[in-house]
Amino acid sequence: MSLILEAILTTATPDGGTHIAPLGFRHENGFIVLSPFQPSRTLDNLRATGLAAISHPADVRIFAGCLTGRRDWPLVPCEQIACGRLADALSHSELIVDRIEEDAVRPRFICREVAHVGHAAFPGHNRAQAAVIEACILASRLGMLSADKVRHEMDYLAIAIEKTAGPRELEAWNWLKEKIDAHRLKEPVA
Amino acid sequence: MSLILEAILTTATPDGGTHIAPLGFRHENGFIVLSPFQPSRTLDNLRATGLAAISHPADVRIFAGCLTGRRDWPLVPCEQIACGRLADALSHSELIVDRIEEDAVRPRFICREVAHVGHAAFPGHNRAQAAVIEACILASRLGMLSADKVRHEMDYLAIAIEKTAGPRELEAWNWLKEKIDAHRLKEPVA
Repeated sequence: MSLILEAILTTATPDGGTHIAPLGFRHENGFIVLSPFQPSRTLDNLRATGLAAISHPADVRIFAGCLTGRRDWPLVPCEQIACGRLADALSHSELIVDRIEEDAVRPRFICREVAHVGHAAFPGHNRAQAAVIEACILASRLGMLSADKVRHEMDYLAIAIEKTAGPRELEAWNWLKEKIDAHRLKEPVA
Repeated sequence: MSLILEAILTTATPDGGTHIAPLGFRHENGFIVLSPFQPSRTLDNLRATGLAAISHPADVRIFAGCLTGRRDWPLVPCEQIACGRLADALSHSELIVDRIEEDAVRPRFICREVAHVGHAAFPGHNRAQAAVIEACILASRLGMLSADKVRHEMDYLAIAIEKTAGPRELEAWNWLKEKIDAHRLKEPVA
């Protein structure tokens, strides 16, 4: 059992750009392990350039935005590698792929962490931010989950939103709800 | 709607000691607002000494421990006020009560933040840590919630624990489960 942390992963593209996507990661034996699903642009970039950064935003709209077509978040250059990272990050890490363990579903990219930099003091745990991250997981798996399960879990998560969200968390939540509601309308009526 | 953050609050006791308890707080007009329930030692201390610190641990066992009789976490002195704070904190704030807005259920302590210090880079959002914090809320309200609701929510939260917990999150989860299971055994059978 090893801790999986959620982050905004930026990968360097072959043409010198930066691609942004949310991804979980874990620490293993001093390395950072990324396992994106096949096929994905993140995976293609990791294979092509081997350069990536993990950013930890305080603003969960960045997680929700990446899942709802809002990927245009301000980036700044990394310190040690030719890749962008989130400008708004409590902390970030810069990664170079050391080796790849191939897998048909989720290849594992074993990365060296060449920089780990704190930018701002952690403001504290917030239940609404956690609820937004859970709703992101749901929104990314709509094709695999029953409408009932999604509705039920969103109702539960809404409690933490109502009780503890600020304006940014509420906006993130509404983006995800819109996406989930739009998906539901496309489903055949039973 | 304003963001509520969860923290470990330490309050200075009249005899020069430090009391530790989890508490939510919010920022309002440049102040930090604490609203502990009546009656509580936290509330008595805030009234008596007006000194407190907010600590943000990376280790959620400290939240779960405070709710399960494990309050003996290492403390260190604050920088600006005569009060302890958690030694293991990603960041902490030091508070002096500016004024009290009385309320029969939850008086509001409006506090000046005299120090806000980062100690370590934020390691990233973790779903299991969020699940532990949700389980803490449940564990603190067992007398008010139906056994069915608690069981149902714990089953849901267990998914994030299974998928994303490290050893510390799992230990915190097991402490809370033990407390919740013990409470259930005391309930009359319907």
